[in-house]
Amino acid sequence: MNTKTIPVGQDILSPAKQAAADLRADFTRRGIFIVNIVSSPGAGKTSLLEATARHWGGQHKMSVLVGDLATDRDAQRLSPLAPTVQLTTGGACHLEMPLIKKGLEQLGPIETEFLFIENIGNLVCPASHDLGEHLRVVVLSTTEGDDKPGKYPKMFRTSQVLVITKTDLLPYVPFSVDSAVADAQLIQPDIQSIAVCARSGEGIAEWCEMLEAARDRMVASRDDHAAVH
Amino acid sequence: MNTKTIPVGQDILSPAKQAAADLRADFTRRGIFIVNIVSSPGAGKTSLLEATARHWGGQHKMSVLVGDLATDRDAQRLSPLAPTVQLTTGGACHLEMPLIKKGLEQLGPIETEFLFIENIGNLVCPASHDLGEHLRVVVLSTTEGDDKPGKYPKMFRTSQVLVITKTDLLPYVPFSVDSAVADAQLIQPDIQSIAVCARSGEGIAEWCEMLEAARDRMVASRDDHAAVH
Repeated sequence: MNTKTIPVGQDILSPAKQAAADLRADFTRRGIFIVNIVSSPGAGKTSLLEATARHWGGQHKMSVLVGDLATDRDAQRLSPLAPTVQLTTGGACHLEMPLIKKGLEQLGPIETEFLFIENIGNLVCPASHDLGEHLRVVVLSTTEGDDKPGKYPKMFRTSQVLVITKTDLLPYVPFSVDSAVADAQLIQPDIQSIAVCARSGEGIAEWCEMLEAARDRMVASRDDHAAVH
Repeated sequence: MNTKTIPVGQDILSPAKQAAADLRADFTRRGIFIVNIVSSPGAGKTSLLEATARHWGGQHKMSVLVGDLATDRDAQRLSPLAPTVQLTTGGACHLEMPLIKKGLEQLGPIETEFLFIENIGNLVCPASHDLGEHLRVVVLSTTEGDDKPGKYPKMFRTSQVLVITKTDLLPYVPFSVDSAVADAQLIQPDIQSIAVCARSGEGIAEWCEMLEAARDRMVASRDDHAAVH
């Protein structure tokens, strides 16, 4: 029996990982910064995006792909504020690349600087799926308890930013922002954290500036890379 | 080629469904009522069980299997109040029968009237897994929004009871108990609903009475069945 060793010069990615890497490379070239927002159900992902759109008021262009198992309730909320496509999984617990691609087709050839992907409300399954994002943001609301990072470690380990929402409820719930951040840092020491209240606008300017700076870094890194080659 | 038709007198269940059905039958015989509690992360499942144990104060015997991806934080909270075993899935998004069986072995041959299974905080995946429960209870906190039943339909469709938690926060959040219940009833018209606040104890007596009545019905039905045969 003949056997043959095939030399490989690079990692062979699974089709899903390859599709995510290709999307990221393509959107980097186009200057579009992709943000994958993950959280429990009802943590305030949609409210955060509403507040983001209101804060920018057209100054920065944003589009949204919003995922749910069923209904177009979130797209109904976001569509008046930004180009939005509702993705419904019919039951699946996370978004995957084929649905992202369909959503992008439906969004069409719009100009945008930021593409937000609002994932399914689920603090477990979306952690395992790269959607081509430049930044993964985990949203934790003050009403969920400050013990959640350690209990759902993969989601916090794979995120670069922790947004703590519903700070207006802090007087009424047993939640310490410092404890939640410390618990997340045990898992992901480099995680950046911001506390916000979408209803009052507290922290939203800081959140938006963080996004703008992250996109600027992506664009600068792309241009540096192009200048070298 | 010979072919043979094998007549089957009953549904052939998958091994997981069979194990769940066997557990339910066994615990029915022993008079132990199994309650599978499902919800988003941080909806208040553990707090509800703490309040339940405090309300009963030993008048009714309860045991708990509590599931998490990681940590034994929930078992640490519940152990002082009731025999509790922490199940950690290491990453899996729901509990399954083999882990339930291991938990029961670890719990040992204790006397109990109620076995609570606190599932992984996840409003999607646990919906698809029968754990041998007599009653599935979905917990929804007032801070998650009253639009969740329609967005996570399978979980509400497969539950018999909806417990709305954190009613103390109603003055501060955009949540209507009536809207949430109506949304759940669109999916599951027979769902029974109770609003509670584990911190103040509001609704906890009603919740406990509901559980006691449900267990009484199970025992009566078992005895009727035994009398006929």
